[in-house]
Order: sequence, then C-alpha cells, then structure tokens
Amino acid sequence: MSLKQIYLDHAAATPMDERVLDAMRPYFDTHFYNPSSPYAPAVQVRHEYEEAKALLAGTFGAKGDEIVITAGATESINLALSGVTGHVVSSAIEHHAVLAAVGRHEHTLVAPTEKGIITPEAIAAAITPNTEIVTIQLANNEIGTIQPLRDIATIIETERNRRAEAGESTPLHFHTDASQGFGQIDVHIARLGVDMLTLNSGKMYGPKQVGLLWLKAGVSVLPLILGGGQERGLRNGTENVAGVMGFSKAAQLAEKHTKSEANRLRELRDNLQITLQKTFSDMVVSGHPKKRLPGSLHVAFPGLDGERLVFRLESRGVLVATGSACAANKGTRSHVLKSIGLGNAEADGSLRLTLGKLSTKEIIQEAARIISEEVQAEYKRIGDA
Amino acid sequence: MSLKQIYLDHAAATPMDERVLDAMRPYFDTHFYNPSSPYAPAVQVRHEYEEAKALLAGTFGAKGDEIVITAGATESINLALSGVTGHVVSSAIEHHAVLAAVGRHEHTLVAPTEKGIITPEAIAAAITPNTEIVTIQLANNEIGTIQPLRDIATIIETERNRRAEAGESTPLHFHTDASQGFGQIDVHIARLGVDMLTLNSGKMYGPKQVGLLWLKAGVSVLPLILGGGQERGLRNGTENVAGVMGFSKAAQLAEKHTKSEANRLRELRDNLQITLQKTFSDMVVSGHPKKRLPGSLHVAFPGLDGERLVFRLESRGVLVATGSACAANKGTRSHVLKSIGLGNAEADGSLRLTLGKLSTKEIIQEAARIISEEVQAEYKRIGDA
Repeated sequence: MSLKQIYLDHAAATPMDERVLDAMRPYFDTHFYNPSSPYAPAVQVRHEYEEAKALLAGTFGAKGDEIVITAGATESINLALSGVTGHVVSSAIEHHAVLAAVGRHEHTLVAPTEKGIITPEAIAAAITPNTEIVTIQLANNEIGTIQPLRDIATIIETERNRRAEAGESTPLHFHTDASQGFGQIDVHIARLGVDMLTLNSGKMYGPKQVGLLWLKAGVSVLPLILGGGQERGLRNGTENVAGVMGFSKAAQLAEKHTKSEANRLRELRDNLQITLQKTFSDMVVSGHPKKRLPGSLHVAFPGLDGERLVFRLESRGVLVATGSACAANKGTRSHVLKSIGLGNAEADGSLRLTLGKLSTKEIIQEAARIISEEVQAEYKRIGDA
Repeated sequence: MSLKQIYLDHAAATPMDERVLDAMRPYFDTHFYNPSSPYAPAVQVRHEYEEAKALLAGTFGAKGDEIVITAGATESINLALSGVTGHVVSSAIEHHAVLAAVGRHEHTLVAPTEKGIITPEAIAAAITPNTEIVTIQLANNEIGTIQPLRDIATIIETERNRRAEAGESTPLHFHTDASQGFGQIDVHIARLGVDMLTLNSGKMYGPKQVGLLWLKAGVSVLPLILGGGQERGLRNGTENVAGVMGFSKAAQLAEKHTKSEANRLRELRDNLQITLQKTFSDMVVSGHPKKRLPGSLHVAFPGLDGERLVFRLESRGVLVATGSACAANKGTRSHVLKSIGLGNAEADGSLRLTLGKLSTKEIIQEAARIISEEVQAEYKRIGDA
C-alpha cells in the first residue's frame, strides 16, 4: 500500500504553479510600491499592473480596462449583481455564492434537466419584463456539466430586441460565473455571448482570493467597497499587485494549454470512469456524458455513505470530495444533486472526483485501483452487517 | 551623487519582510488545500489558518474568532459601517476610504485642531441620540498625528450610559482605522477602548490586500459579500490562507519590536527634522510635535511646488510623497492640510516623509543632505525667475 498522495479535488483548490510564484515574487519586496504613488518606480509598477491586466483580459477576448480585479469569485459575483433593482434569473444548481447573492433580489431559479443542463427554453420561460440579469454558470462545480451559454445568449438577445421594439427601457444583462472550467474548455466572451464574466485565480493554479469581473462596455454595477478610487472606483483599496501578476500568469498558462490539457484530462477521466463502471455495474455517473468538464467525474454508489468513503480513501492517500467544499463543510445534502433528481441513496453515496495538473496516468490508474478496493470493502462491510 | 534608492514613503506601501514570505510559501503549493475540504491535509490547513488568526488577533489583545479577514483596510472600513442605519460621527481628516464609506450615511465630520488632533469635546458635541458609530483613525496617514482614542472612548461610554438610563435602545459603537501606526505605537483594543478595529497587512510589511476587522462580542455588521459561509458568514469566499499566514507573521514581528522600532524611528525622524529646520527657517512642520507617529514627518516649504520637489528628489533617488498616494494620484489638494488650516502656499509646497524599516541612520543623513540641496535649488530657481 503506497501512501503517496493522490489529489482528486482540483475543483476545490489548485496548487499554485511555480511560474506563477515567480511572476509574483518581485512585487512582494523589490517592486512593492503603491501603484498610486507619483515617483517613477511606482509608476512603473502601475504600468506593469495594467499590462498584466491587459494580458489577463486578453486570455478571454477582453480588454484590460474592462475588468475589475476583486478578491475572488464570490466578490465578483456579488459585484455583478450589485446594481440590480428588479428581477434575476438564475439556476438551481449555481454555486452557493451565486445563490446567496441572487437571494438578495426578486428571482427565479431555473431547474436543470436530469443531466444538469439549463436549457435556453427554461431561461426564456423564466425571463419577465422586469428581469435585469440572467446569471448562469459556465460549468457546474459538482457534476461538471457545461451550460449552453451561447444559446442562452440568443434568448437574451431576443428579449432585448422585444424590449427595444416595445419601448421598454429595463436593461437585461447576461452574467456567467466561469470559475470552473477555465483551462479545460474554451472561455471567450464573444463566443459565449455574455455581458459579464467572473473568473477565479484560485481555481486555475493562481493565488487564492484574487478574481475578476469583466464588464462589457455600458454595463454598470455599484461598488460594494468605497474608497480611494482604484479599479475605476468600482473596487477600492490598494491594488493587489503581486496577486494580479500571479493571476495573469496563471490565466495565460491555462489558456495556452487548454486544448492539450482537455484532451489529456478527458482520456484519464474516461479511463477512470470505465474502470469503475466495469467493477460497479450500478454506479451512477451524474452530469452530461459529453457536455461535461474533461476533468470532472461525479459518481454515486447507491447504498454507501460518501463521507465514510472520503475518510477510507484518505487513509489510503486519495483525497476526494463528496461535493463542493463549502457544502461538505456544512454536512448538508447537495442542492445540485437534489435538483437533477438524484435519489437520496445515490446522493449520499456520491463522490466528486476532479482531475487536474496533479493527475498523471500512473496516478489515475492507482486511484482507480484504490477507489475500487475501498468501495468493494464498504459494500462488503454493509453486506456483512 | 549617489543613485542608491532612498525610500521615504512607508505610509504608502511597505516591502514585504522575507520572514513573511517564508510563512506564506508552503500555502501556495504544498499546503494549497481548500480549508473547507473534509480530508485531513485540508483540515490541517484549516487548523493552521485558525491558529494564525488567533496569533494575529493576539497582537492587539483580541481573540481569533473575533476578527473577520478581509481584502484590506478599505473593505474592513466598509464592513464596519455596513450595519449602520442612523448617524455616523467621523473626522474631516480620515482616509478617503473612511470618508467614502461614511458618505453613505447621515454623518458629521468633526474638525481637527491646528495640530491635527480630534478632541473628545468635539466628538461629544457631534454625537446625537441617533449616532450609531463613531469612527476615528488611530493616526493620520499624512501628518502622523495620533488621536486620543482612549479619551474619545470615555465620551462614548458616557453617551451609552445616558442612553441606557433614558431607556434609548440605539446602539453606539466606536471604530478605529488603525492602518497607520501598527508597529510604531501601542495598539491594544482594551487600552484604546474601541469596539471595532481595522488593520491593514500591507502597511506593516505583510502582503497587500489582506486586512481585518475586529468586532467586540455583540457588535454586528452586515456582510458585503455573500456566499459559502466563510468567516462566520461575514466575509464569504475561499479563505486567503497564504495571505493570512503572511499577515499574522507580519503583525507578530511588528508588535514584538514596537518599542525599539519607535525609538529608532523617532531619533532618525527628529534628526531629519532638525537638520531641515536649521537650513530652512520658514519650513512648516505639520501635525502634533509630540503626539505623532515616530516615523512621520510632514514639512511644507512655502512658495515651492511639492510635486516639482517630488520629481527633483526622485532624480536623486529619494522617493517621497506630497500626500497620500490616493490623493496624489488625483492631483487634488489634501483635505487633511486644508482641515488643519494650512494655507495654500504651504499645502502646495508640502512633502510627506515617512520612515520605516528601510530607513537607516546613514540613509536618513543622506536624505537630509539631498532634500536640503534640492529645496535650496528650487528656492534659487524661483528667486532667479
């Protein structure tokens, strides 16, 4: 039994890339100046900060001055919704941050299909003349399903045209929480058709507590944090220069290798899935079989206790989750699994396996072997009881 | 002419201490886990995070679970004021972050004395039966004046007692923005008599965009950022583990050496002041001569242009500010200098010199020489014109 660590929870946190720390390093000490200071070394830091923002924005087709740097996706999401006075359309399977921020407003949560897809038809049915924002995640953080954002954007465009023709002035914008998926699938504002986009550095091998909100020209939000006028007054406070340098580097690395990493992860994930399916014929795989993040595998072993499995696997060096880190911490049943209609027996026996940079072929083979052994042992324990 | 850099703007930004980076380093890659994940290595990170928070809180006499980690002082200040529905008392010389956050509410800004002191009497006069928060900075970021918080706390206690006796239920709390001064003067919640306290890692040789708000038991605020329930639900989003490790280390180092550093800086600052005063008899020193941060020196050369001086000094390797970085960036006249009644000729010829860890005896002697030369050259240029 090897106690080498096998990390299968990349959706919860990612280790920072060494090149990311290298990009941050100078801004901790030698280039530590406040970018608002007037002397040349500080002006140089301001310049490098803006340049890093431009490169960061460029990874998804935007411009540097269109993004607001925040302290993570949760803040970005709250900021995206800050200007809303009317109705919001979202989905029942969004991250807790979106559900909490949406909860501040009159809202409708659209139900997903059994595969976890939010259909454009369901969005169309939920939009009212008073809807100001539709916010739908790019990919689900538990089951990995990728949403048809482009098609939802078409629905939104149709409603915008209707309002324009009817002389109605209520604005309608489309926001996506793209925290999950960057570096695994194509993320480009023009191709997605969104007006606002949230990204999270901590999910793409960058530093934690750095995020961004991209705003299409003309889309306005109300600052949550007032102060010295930084980030066009939309997010005040001395800039996180080192953090943005790291985020920018991480995004550039992720974007550059998206295709090859997607192919690599998909093959590993599919092999893991097939191996487990061969051994456990009643294992349930949740999410859409194709429209799913390449590194995501959500499986349920009906009758087993997912939390027990997590600890059994941990004792063998395999780190997995039952669901999102936030939900797991509260010991509540996943709202995502409930929404896609998974029964309690399946939901309670769930494991979320998310692959990423730390997943090599050898490691995933080892993981398949250990998970098989431990699931079998659990079934045996229950059968014997 | 030496082009060795002489940094005299520690109030704007501080270089991160090497020991701080060492404390952060493991949490970027090897200990990168989401502290809300269920497996042992993540639980260990949670434990270390809470421990670091406890040590951080301990540096100013508080407990770990009484502090909310934020992305900097600006956010802390906004959070401190988030629950207010009534009147706020503050001062005319607060940082822009406080003035902006206070501006959201009905408020009274108390004027300082000519030395920049906010007197307890002025606070008493400004408090109304509807006042919910009094927020006064520990020390001014431009002129360095240290405020008599303990005496203001007594005024607040008197008003609380009056309300209790009168059967009035409006709460009254005392917040201080202690961003400037930690590591130079005593900062201890019991001795200051405050109910809420804001600290900023980036001003004490820790990482930027990490801050905290301490809340006395029973003081409530409304979260600005909703989400996964982190920081007791008061500040949601995956925790900035590395940042907090750095902040905690920085605060411990600063607190430990407060007395010796204060004495060292005071001697250097006084020598610099005396040297300049000898050469320029009409030089104006702003702020209180005694109740002033040991590392702060605000001087005005009537008739000169502070911005020109900044660039002249920069060409000699001396980095100074005319005022706060935020204000300098906007090219506006300092609200602080205006409030203490400094004339425009003095305000426009101002330099803010803030000493800190990078200030050695040799460096400050060199700074005094170069500043004297450049100020003389400017007076000569004007006289010749």
